[in-house]
Amino acid sequence: MPHTDRTPGRPLAGTVVLDLTTALAGPYATLLLAGLGATVVKVENPATGGDSARNNSPYYGRDGLNMARVDDTDMSVSMMGRGRNKKSITLNLKDPRGRATFLRLARNADIVVENYAAGTADRLGIGYEDVRAVNPTVIYTSISGFGAGGGSGKAMDSIIQALSGVMYTAGEPGTEPVRIGLPVGDLLAPLYAVIGTLAAKTQRDQDGVGQHVDVSMLGALTSLLSTEPFDAHEQVGLPVRTGNEVPRLAPFGIFPAKDGFLALCGPTDTFARGVFRAMGRPDLIEDERFATRDQRVHHASALHEMVGAWSQSRPRAEAVAALAAQGVPAAEVLTPADALRNPDVRRREEVVELGHPEHGSTGVMGPGVPIRFSHADVRLDRPAPHLGEHTGELLADLGGLSGEEIAELRQAGVI
Amino acid sequence: MPHTDRTPGRPLAGTVVLDLTTALAGPYATLLLAGLGATVVKVENPATGGDSARNNSPYYGRDGLNMARVDDTDMSVSMMGRGRNKKSITLNLKDPRGRATFLRLARNADIVVENYAAGTADRLGIGYEDVRAVNPTVIYTSISGFGAGGGSGKAMDSIIQALSGVMYTAGEPGTEPVRIGLPVGDLLAPLYAVIGTLAAKTQRDQDGVGQHVDVSMLGALTSLLSTEPFDAHEQVGLPVRTGNEVPRLAPFGIFPAKDGFLALCGPTDTFARGVFRAMGRPDLIEDERFATRDQRVHHASALHEMVGAWSQSRPRAEAVAALAAQGVPAAEVLTPADALRNPDVRRREEVVELGHPEHGSTGVMGPGVPIRFSHADVRLDRPAPHLGEHTGELLADLGGLSGEEIAELRQAGVI
Repeated sequence: MPHTDRTPGRPLAGTVVLDLTTALAGPYATLLLAGLGATVVKVENPATGGDSARNNSPYYGRDGLNMARVDDTDMSVSMMGRGRNKKSITLNLKDPRGRATFLRLARNADIVVENYAAGTADRLGIGYEDVRAVNPTVIYTSISGFGAGGGSGKAMDSIIQALSGVMYTAGEPGTEPVRIGLPVGDLLAPLYAVIGTLAAKTQRDQDGVGQHVDVSMLGALTSLLSTEPFDAHEQVGLPVRTGNEVPRLAPFGIFPAKDGFLALCGPTDTFARGVFRAMGRPDLIEDERFATRDQRVHHASALHEMVGAWSQSRPRAEAVAALAAQGVPAAEVLTPADALRNPDVRRREEVVELGHPEHGSTGVMGPGVPIRFSHADVRLDRPAPHLGEHTGELLADLGGLSGEEIAELRQAGVI
Repeated sequence: MPHTDRTPGRPLAGTVVLDLTTALAGPYATLLLAGLGATVVKVENPATGGDSARNNSPYYGRDGLNMARVDDTDMSVSMMGRGRNKKSITLNLKDPRGRATFLRLARNADIVVENYAAGTADRLGIGYEDVRAVNPTVIYTSISGFGAGGGSGKAMDSIIQALSGVMYTAGEPGTEPVRIGLPVGDLLAPLYAVIGTLAAKTQRDQDGVGQHVDVSMLGALTSLLSTEPFDAHEQVGLPVRTGNEVPRLAPFGIFPAKDGFLALCGPTDTFARGVFRAMGRPDLIEDERFATRDQRVHHASALHEMVGAWSQSRPRAEAVAALAAQGVPAAEVLTPADALRNPDVRRREEVVELGHPEHGSTGVMGPGVPIRFSHADVRLDRPAPHLGEHTGELLADLGGLSGEEIAELRQAGVI
């Protein structure tokens, strides 16, 4: 029976995650688990300098941001973001002693997360079956490019984007496909991986059985894409790719302003009338080309041209305010730097300032956990660890290794 | 104590979700919960024809796909996808009897999910505090444009995209911002909402306390965007927006082929050499412009021009095969229609064929749950319900209403 305790706790308090991930997709999954309160133990290879993201420029050190490493406190911005609230231990898993040590840790873990190419963890002897043999209730979550048993090719973000169809959902019809700078090829799989991990944990709390959770980067992005009825649209002859406008929703699109651009959505009669009033042209409501939704769709080009002519002669803030005053959904199109400094997003800690373990505040923005809980303590409040910072402590506490065993591993370069 | 049961179950079996959501963001969250095995009870307003997504064309009916409704079995493709494995009841929540009935249902629910504009649920008397008063352990999850207490403006996908910065992560530098057809403004919040809901459930299983989980569409997208160090890049003077190429990773980009485009990522020495060999130009390895990573970055334009000249003279499949044979990450750029039919994605049920409640298979693709579990029965295998299909049954079973009470509500048009 659950007991009632009114002190907000961390949802995953007491849950131990062994984190074998590197780069972006896997580390973002374990970052969310850490933010939710799990104890995340990041296992890094001492022979290669650890997680490859430690070697992504730029770095932050004594003199602030630098493209190159300049001092021994340097930490990559990638790691400052993704390593928060995690502990780091070094362990060379290609060494049989490293593997044996890993399995000792795994015996006491609730969850293992890895994002090797499919098949690699099994080859190293640290795959699901290996861990399950020592810990039958483990939840073992894999993120790979194409899923377990799938291709083992390098699943870089733009490769996943290309294969998912997403590159043909942006851009003007007839032009070349468009790569999206937000790495959706990398970043959807970790969200599904966290969902799968938590669902498996819920199930285990019921039936006592662990399992393998297997998420594909390509599958995650393609699946999300299939929520939009592109397929049905294509079958009925609706254009799938319409650029910044959507003629069937006219007036709808990105319009120029004196000092940038604005987005506008006015698909209903009410919104369309609001657009006309904002433009100081209430007479257009009577214009037979624009009186009904069907007519506006039919005359979308003429309509969009008129809206653009109006918007481009004034600052975007002024145009958006005029539209908002009429109840029309509209917004300034912001750059990432401005968007990350949105006061509401900052207040809700969806984006936070990254801290450096030695230098404190950095002025560089990174992700929070974008979920607000009324009764949980969820935050990323501890700076990322340096490589191997917690090796001795965790090998002893979690793995039960003696001081002598740890010294031997250290001497052998396994940790 | 958990008992051991080796029959794969549904992770959320026995969990009852009251689903107040409409349109896309909320319904996708509850679709995932339904796929994970929760009993999802979709509450729809009989006065407005239910979820607005029921009125999105195209529809599927006796004659297949149609832009307009043509027969009484018609169901929108949006609803065929998002309504699966849910039950539908009608209930007018603006009527005091509807609200009272809702609270009777809520007493026996584990989870409530809503995506009204911020503040609306409270105004209707069905907000978190209202439900908590009758069910203190409820987990009440809200998805809104800007979060609880935030703006209540219409949070359409392109408005969220505009404010998040994502529109300036695609497209060539200096050109207008780029709207992404994949509705990332809508579709990230539901993923975080599911994570938050499952985390809160885990916490409740420990401490017995329910809570409010509050996710903002803008916060979700902006937070995900902040995982990429755009901010640090801008501070050190790296270009944030580089279009389809990334000069600092050269050779990298989207290149033309005879019959389409391909994506190529060759940032390392090994990959760059593979590209040169695939092009039949191993001599370029010796070319001082391309010998090192720094030199390739410096001469990115010349390099990318040579790659494009090579690729555009052959079919994309042939170019990709030549690159793959040299171990270079490369892929054909697919359209959504082709991507959704990728045999691996179909086999893994990340994308599935949608079924119609009367007409069975439809040939239209939609999302599965893109997570594979080794020991769980996770799938979307029941067609979407017609409006109010389960009203009587659920008001009786879940709400404990008598036949007489149900008849009265029906007569009054409340259900």
